[in-house]
Amino acid sequence: MPELRQNIATREWVVIATERAKRPDDFADAERPLSESRPAREAGCPFCPGNEAIAGPPTLSVDGPGGWLVRVVPNKFPALVEDQEPMRSFRGIERRMSGFGVHEVLIESPLHNVTTALQSDVEVARSLRAMRSRGRSLARDERILVTIFFKNHGAEAGTSLEHPHSQMVSLPVVPHHVRGRLQDAGAYFDEHGSCVFCDMWRQELTAGARVIVEGAHCVAFIPYAAFSPFHTWIVPKRHMPLFIQASDAELEDVARVLRSVLRRIYFSLRDPDFNFVVRTAPNHEERSRSFHWYLSIVPKVTRTAGFEIGSGMFINTSLPEESARFLREAKSS
Amino acid sequence: MPELRQNIATREWVVIATERAKRPDDFADAERPLSESRPAREAGCPFCPGNEAIAGPPTLSVDGPGGWLVRVVPNKFPALVEDQEPMRSFRGIERRMSGFGVHEVLIESPLHNVTTALQSDVEVARSLRAMRSRGRSLARDERILVTIFFKNHGAEAGTSLEHPHSQMVSLPVVPHHVRGRLQDAGAYFDEHGSCVFCDMWRQELTAGARVIVEGAHCVAFIPYAAFSPFHTWIVPKRHMPLFIQASDAELEDVARVLRSVLRRIYFSLRDPDFNFVVRTAPNHEERSRSFHWYLSIVPKVTRTAGFEIGSGMFINTSLPEESARFLREAKSS
Repeated sequence: MPELRQNIATREWVVIATERAKRPDDFADAERPLSESRPAREAGCPFCPGNEAIAGPPTLSVDGPGGWLVRVVPNKFPALVEDQEPMRSFRGIERRMSGFGVHEVLIESPLHNVTTALQSDVEVARSLRAMRSRGRSLARDERILVTIFFKNHGAEAGTSLEHPHSQMVSLPVVPHHVRGRLQDAGAYFDEHGSCVFCDMWRQELTAGARVIVEGAHCVAFIPYAAFSPFHTWIVPKRHMPLFIQASDAELEDVARVLRSVLRRIYFSLRDPDFNFVVRTAPNHEERSRSFHWYLSIVPKVTRTAGFEIGSGMFINTSLPEESARFLREAKSS
Repeated sequence: MPELRQNIATREWVVIATERAKRPDDFADAERPLSESRPAREAGCPFCPGNEAIAGPPTLSVDGPGGWLVRVVPNKFPALVEDQEPMRSFRGIERRMSGFGVHEVLIESPLHNVTTALQSDVEVARSLRAMRSRGRSLARDERILVTIFFKNHGAEAGTSLEHPHSQMVSLPVVPHHVRGRLQDAGAYFDEHGSCVFCDMWRQELTAGARVIVEGAHCVAFIPYAAFSPFHTWIVPKRHMPLFIQASDAELEDVARVLRSVLRRIYFSLRDPDFNFVVRTAPNHEERSRSFHWYLSIVPKVTRTAGFEIGSGMFINTSLPEESARFLREAKSS
């Protein structure tokens, strides 16, 4: 029988359609070439060593004895640009703002054919620290309200670039969706006197059925109302509204857990395309008692259609408890 | 220069990224086989005449002298099912509800290879009337709060079935997204004393630059803050919260305008996959002064990625005014 589930943090309902369910390993595509089967270096790749001139000067570079290890560069085709001031103008239905913003790319490795799952804990932590470092610098600019950190892996997830990278977009507005999440978390706090994300990770840990892996400072689980198969949250245990507030120890633990989850997905589902996003509060909400940053991983194993557009709800053809057990038991090293 | 635009009804910001812009006809894929190139009848298709037994007894059938013209049948793989009562249960983070609901399919023609763009005004109106008729029947069931009407055309839009069809899902909850839209429309009404959708279609008609086609009872335009290329709204001129409140004359006019827009898209962009959804208020909001139903068409010419998941915002690589002019001047007959 299908059932409806509601995420207590996002208040979104999802249809868990067990009648349409596949077995977890049916989502693995045996035809898909693995990331590691690509060459370690690609002559025309703008992110490969030797081609640094294409991307231009970095805003951050972490160097090792043999050259750079990670680099952050301006996006060559930025969605938003820095050389204008954020000016709003309202005229009837025409509400606009100049396209001020910052759009950067984090190149996660000099190697063309690795992906997070194939990197070491140290390498993944280095990328997260670079992300945090840029996020902290950008947060000093009062014109920036929030920075969205995300990774697109594979064509289905929206990138044509194979070289391992993630992105940061700093916005001069609070997106309506982010505002809604903040308000919902605030309403929960007013009702319960606690942060919904703090309550959620504790209860998920107690229930256990949806936990994939627990770290010293964070927990990875498939939410009770996961909106798609293998949709995973990594929630830090300490209450912190902003991603950039994470300590070194916390970030290293998130890196370990993230890598562990992505390895399980890589090996058991054969390197599916995926997105991950860091959901963080706007910079000025750094003392929020109700919002809590977390990382959300969305493997692209299904497609959204008219029902999702029309209702904002999702139909999940897998049972979160079953997907979690599958990933918990999957190879991670 | 990029700019940010906000839709005054949905309050969503969108990045209009002109730097990344393509010309409108770059979205046409010359390789794509047209719907009309398929056979008019397919032996294994569950919706083709002769195979009626597969889908089972219809909940509505409109017949002509040579057989049925449109049929509504239960979905064979329903997201939600009718044979249980809507029961909620809350236990900590586990908020669930039995999967009560109704999921039906509207078969829009006995012909396998037509699509809305290739049908006559009379045929399109017949489908919309069938949708309204089922919607009215379903609205009499107090357990149903809202019905989502939508169409998926093509694999990118989420359907593997070629035969022209659309769907209806009746829900026992108000989706969070729909609730948000209602609240935003209410806030606008409280501030301005008018319906934001009534204000919007009038101002779009006055501005003119984004209008594709005007009917006697509705207007088709590309919203000022369209979230993707050729994203089109068809808004009825009379204030009505619910789709099922449309009169025969209004529905016939919407059918004419919808067909005209879809023909322009079909010919000028070579039959791209698309979704359309009817955004309607929940059944009990039939007297709402602030919400107004409309139809939203979303051609699948781009892909969403991490930025969209993380921010709920979209990056539109086309200028709404330019896309509207392109479709206004495109072949429609």
